[in-house]
Amino acid sequence: MSLMQVHSFAEGRWVPPGPEARLIEHAVTGAPMAEAGGVIDAEAMLDHARRVGGAALRVMTFHDRARMLKALALHLREHRQALYDLSFATGATQADHLIDVDGGIGTMFVFASKGRREMPDAHVYLDGPPEQLSRDGTFLGQHVCVPLQGVAVQINAFNFPVWGMLEKLAPTLLAGVPAIVKPATATCYVTELAVRLMLDSGLLPEGALQLVTGGLGDMLDRLGPQDAVGFTGSAATALHLRSNPNLLRQSVRFVAEQDSLNASILGPDALPGTPEFDLFIKEAAREITTKAGQKCTATRRILASADRTEAVVAALSARLSKITVGDPQVEGTRMGALVSRAQKADVLEKVRTLDAEAERVFGDPDRFAEAPGAFLQPMLFHCADPDAAARLHDTEAFGPVSTVMPYRDMDHAIALANRGQGSLVASVITHDPAVAQQAVQGMAAWHGRLYFNNRDSMGEATGHGSPMPHMVHGGPGRAGGGEELGGVRGVLHYMQRTAVQGSPTLLQAIGSRHVTGAETHPGPTHPFRRTFDDLTIGERLTTDARTVTLEDIEHFAAFTGDTFYAHMDAEAATRNPFFPGRVAHGYLILSFAAGLFVDPAEGPVLANTGLDALRFLKPVEAGASIRVHLTVKGKTPRTDDYGEVRWAVEVVDGADDVVAEYDLLTMVARGG
Amino acid sequence: MSLMQVHSFAEGRWVPPGPEARLIEHAVTGAPMAEAGGVIDAEAMLDHARRVGGAALRVMTFHDRARMLKALALHLREHRQALYDLSFATGATQADHLIDVDGGIGTMFVFASKGRREMPDAHVYLDGPPEQLSRDGTFLGQHVCVPLQGVAVQINAFNFPVWGMLEKLAPTLLAGVPAIVKPATATCYVTELAVRLMLDSGLLPEGALQLVTGGLGDMLDRLGPQDAVGFTGSAATALHLRSNPNLLRQSVRFVAEQDSLNASILGPDALPGTPEFDLFIKEAAREITTKAGQKCTATRRILASADRTEAVVAALSARLSKITVGDPQVEGTRMGALVSRAQKADVLEKVRTLDAEAERVFGDPDRFAEAPGAFLQPMLFHCADPDAAARLHDTEAFGPVSTVMPYRDMDHAIALANRGQGSLVASVITHDPAVAQQAVQGMAAWHGRLYFNNRDSMGEATGHGSPMPHMVHGGPGRAGGGEELGGVRGVLHYMQRTAVQGSPTLLQAIGSRHVTGAETHPGPTHPFRRTFDDLTIGERLTTDARTVTLEDIEHFAAFTGDTFYAHMDAEAATRNPFFPGRVAHGYLILSFAAGLFVDPAEGPVLANTGLDALRFLKPVEAGASIRVHLTVKGKTPRTDDYGEVRWAVEVVDGADDVVAEYDLLTMVARGG
Repeated sequence: MSLMQVHSFAEGRWVPPGPEARLIEHAVTGAPMAEAGGVIDAEAMLDHARRVGGAALRVMTFHDRARMLKALALHLREHRQALYDLSFATGATQADHLIDVDGGIGTMFVFASKGRREMPDAHVYLDGPPEQLSRDGTFLGQHVCVPLQGVAVQINAFNFPVWGMLEKLAPTLLAGVPAIVKPATATCYVTELAVRLMLDSGLLPEGALQLVTGGLGDMLDRLGPQDAVGFTGSAATALHLRSNPNLLRQSVRFVAEQDSLNASILGPDALPGTPEFDLFIKEAAREITTKAGQKCTATRRILASADRTEAVVAALSARLSKITVGDPQVEGTRMGALVSRAQKADVLEKVRTLDAEAERVFGDPDRFAEAPGAFLQPMLFHCADPDAAARLHDTEAFGPVSTVMPYRDMDHAIALANRGQGSLVASVITHDPAVAQQAVQGMAAWHGRLYFNNRDSMGEATGHGSPMPHMVHGGPGRAGGGEELGGVRGVLHYMQRTAVQGSPTLLQAIGSRHVTGAETHPGPTHPFRRTFDDLTIGERLTTDARTVTLEDIEHFAAFTGDTFYAHMDAEAATRNPFFPGRVAHGYLILSFAAGLFVDPAEGPVLANTGLDALRFLKPVEAGASIRVHLTVKGKTPRTDDYGEVRWAVEVVDGADDVVAEYDLLTMVARGG
Repeated sequence: MSLMQVHSFAEGRWVPPGPEARLIEHAVTGAPMAEAGGVIDAEAMLDHARRVGGAALRVMTFHDRARMLKALALHLREHRQALYDLSFATGATQADHLIDVDGGIGTMFVFASKGRREMPDAHVYLDGPPEQLSRDGTFLGQHVCVPLQGVAVQINAFNFPVWGMLEKLAPTLLAGVPAIVKPATATCYVTELAVRLMLDSGLLPEGALQLVTGGLGDMLDRLGPQDAVGFTGSAATALHLRSNPNLLRQSVRFVAEQDSLNASILGPDALPGTPEFDLFIKEAAREITTKAGQKCTATRRILASADRTEAVVAALSARLSKITVGDPQVEGTRMGALVSRAQKADVLEKVRTLDAEAERVFGDPDRFAEAPGAFLQPMLFHCADPDAAARLHDTEAFGPVSTVMPYRDMDHAIALANRGQGSLVASVITHDPAVAQQAVQGMAAWHGRLYFNNRDSMGEATGHGSPMPHMVHGGPGRAGGGEELGGVRGVLHYMQRTAVQGSPTLLQAIGSRHVTGAETHPGPTHPFRRTFDDLTIGERLTTDARTVTLEDIEHFAAFTGDTFYAHMDAEAATRNPFFPGRVAHGYLILSFAAGLFVDPAEGPVLANTGLDALRFLKPVEAGASIRVHLTVKGKTPRTDDYGEVRWAVEVVDGADDVVAEYDLLTMVARGG
């Protein structure tokens, strides 16, 4: 049988395995199936990424790149069967493929969507509102984020050859930064296929994505301050990489997801017989068996109050005994093989460590000793005295292995969970809000994610072990101290946050967004007669004035039913610390303001969709005259037909004091 | 003369200098003036901070800690004269003291204010809105931040003995994390006095602040995943510290501000004779002479277009020639001494490096060769070919030294600025918004701060060299890759961001904030009859229904003047892609909603102050019936007399579809 040739993709060319290629074994048969690792020129790859890929990506806006991600995700989804077919060789089941392949594609979709919804159609991302640095507002601050001008080198683990790449790649590309991806050798052939599919789609600019299926050579020694390294794998390898003198000297960003002794706590309220108890058992069993336990987020420590550990062990053992282990392509198989015999040997070594501190209550390490593939039966341990155990809280058997341990009370459970010295995720199955509160205050500092589940959420909960693209993934201490994903947060990890200071007019130009105090200009006609594409940032309409009369106030009160005393009763209103006497309703001011600035005839402005950050700044008494400054603040395309225009509205009185200010949102038709 | 004894403060006790104390010289006289450095027990100090200080701080809410910061700042301000008096010995002038002492106190005030205004009166900070992780909303995500459970070890530079400590300490204490402060030996006596003042105030809980004026011993080897190290100083020391194997192994957070070859660019538009040219000269001269140039943000490289470098050199030299250097306590002195003769020698060595690549056009390195104190004349260099220069872009003479260099065009200026390989700040003096835009897109990735100034902002601008507490401080690459300050951003550096997932009811309890879909409960009376302190999160009023008639719509249009066609013209409205036909005004719905939920009589609810995140979700046609769910979402105390109550408002129609949702803000009286 000829070996599959796993290529690298460097400087725009596919590079076949070279003389130092590594052999890869089939997880199910144990037979050699592929060789990987071509000869690459690290400096040339970095240069290609930085000069060609980075420049091309930075020309695009966030929305351009989000659209590209969506198209890539659609393309991958269309070809996912090929990825499934190939992935069986890694030992994974079809259910595992859904996590890896569909999970990876889903992550891309989420970033595509967030890029369109939460980032601007521009090159500069504004982080937070302007900061007032001066009394009169002629000098302001604004935090902005721009893409790093370097390259992201992303070193992934073997367990998720598709998701592992895409969860790092999607935010990187959305940020506008090219990537060089280095998958783990054991499953790099699946990653190679995913890369091939993306490159063949023609959607990626040249230089945006390169692949190294062999060693990186001296690439890390050549990185600089605009580059970033993302790593997922063992703590030992992470320590080796992060100690690289060049990375340290140049302050190169280094993010690691590494070991994690994730805990799952059965809430004190979750007695046997409750929906929470059954849910706990179900989630724990799933965490042990999915991907044959080769998941950085899998539950390694199962905590239940002392009087319930026996029930937990019994229920979990019963559930695990129904798991059929075998060839993932055979009907009925519930758990496949570990990725390799080396990985299996590593797990068995850790199992011997656990044996010294805990009692094995389910599973036989020798059950598949004779099989040619890397099969292993799920194993459950029980440790009666977890306080005394030394290795239980720092030994990660990266396979279908977990340990049940008792706690005395919730404080004890929290202390035990925190003994993992930093984890990616801890879960608490509870229906009691007070338990959840206590867990967050006691545990959140030690865990990158806290997952709560109960009868109310179990129908839709996403699972203890599933990092969601919306939420940050990573954890302190042993887990590496890194952070990925989390929506826009994950994109910002590949950008520089810079504090910009200057006049409102300069900040308006920099951020493509109107800033209070910046220069404005009149439009050629009423803004409601202008299309989305015609309107310009800073374009301003100032309306005529209208006097607010006492009759208006009384009429509005009677009409709406809002007869609050501050509008109706002069004496009572005067007693109110905020009002000089009877004042107009805030909603009356808003309504009159609209009456002043709305141009009624059909035109490009289609609908008022909302309003943000309304503040009433000065009470309006009867007799006051109000007018409105309506200024185009920002524009965000939504479809080919229309876009959202955000208007800065200032309602001012006769003394030119601002009585109310807000952002008005409208949908406006595009085109000429 | 007896030497001043600079103590450490460890485990609640003042520790005098021990046998290995270091001598400190007076910057102006060169004479020994103090000795510093007692024997400390690193493990005991860490334990004291973590167990005693951390626990005490975490019991407090963000508002409690913000109030503490404000009181500390007031106390320091009251005693600032003592800090001024002592600071002259460091060589600093009264103007320099204002930056160090008043700047440090001002930073505390800003964090106190932001803590009250931008953080909750609670123990958990919510980072961003809930994330929709499920179709029906029974399972949501929420990022939360909680204090690290360890200690912050903060190692500061000699140049700002007060500000340098307080700019790190204020966000740390606000986060709820205790600190161990280690000032640089040369000026640690000023820091010691500031610490003594704070401790004597009695405002700090035991263990929240300790001081090491000698060496840290093996403290860094004893840190863990919940600890953090903040460092300001040289790149060489930073590299040494960040390479500490224990810090790397335990993923201990390490933030550094180190070397920085800050650039200032005279905009292409800023011709001699413009306000910008004069401003540029003034700021450059100030950056060279303030603190005798011993400022990590000082301008080291002055960039002007080639045809203007001569004018820049002439104008700057003229300005520098008027700077009187001498004893800072003598009337008329504009620039004091460097901190020590060792520091002066270091600067002179760097000056020799510059001599090889640039021409000295102002200042004589030997001018004060005979003086006993560490005096130095300001020096200006000119380098005609900055592209060819190798050391100019990486040699930081940490004194009153800067180099003028020519650029061809803005792209060239950007490339030269970026050759610093990462800086804390770069400035551009320009009145042209296009230049500012170009600078941000080309330079922001290389600089932690971009400072723009011109005729519009110069009256209020805060200066190239001044980090503001509102804005992040730090920079990539050579500058250390760290980030501090930036308002709440700086506080979060001492907190763990954790992704929390669960049911709306659990998230509501965790965040002390109502979440859509969470359990609600009726109050005992109408909520407008309840005080701030009485109201509970999740307390809900559901109003009666009101039908919106066509007459209402027409009446509202006539009354307000808002006759937009979607409300008035059935045919035109039907052509609108968002509406089924004629619909009610959004402001009519808001106004009727208020009419439904407002209880008119005098009571605890004082005023509607604003409204956030209003979205109109479904058009309301004539004949529809609306009612309102009004739910207490959050509570924030503002004064002793009242607090802000945030209400979640849902306006629903007869089909129970939400037609509008928003947050309503009110001020509500406290007390029973």
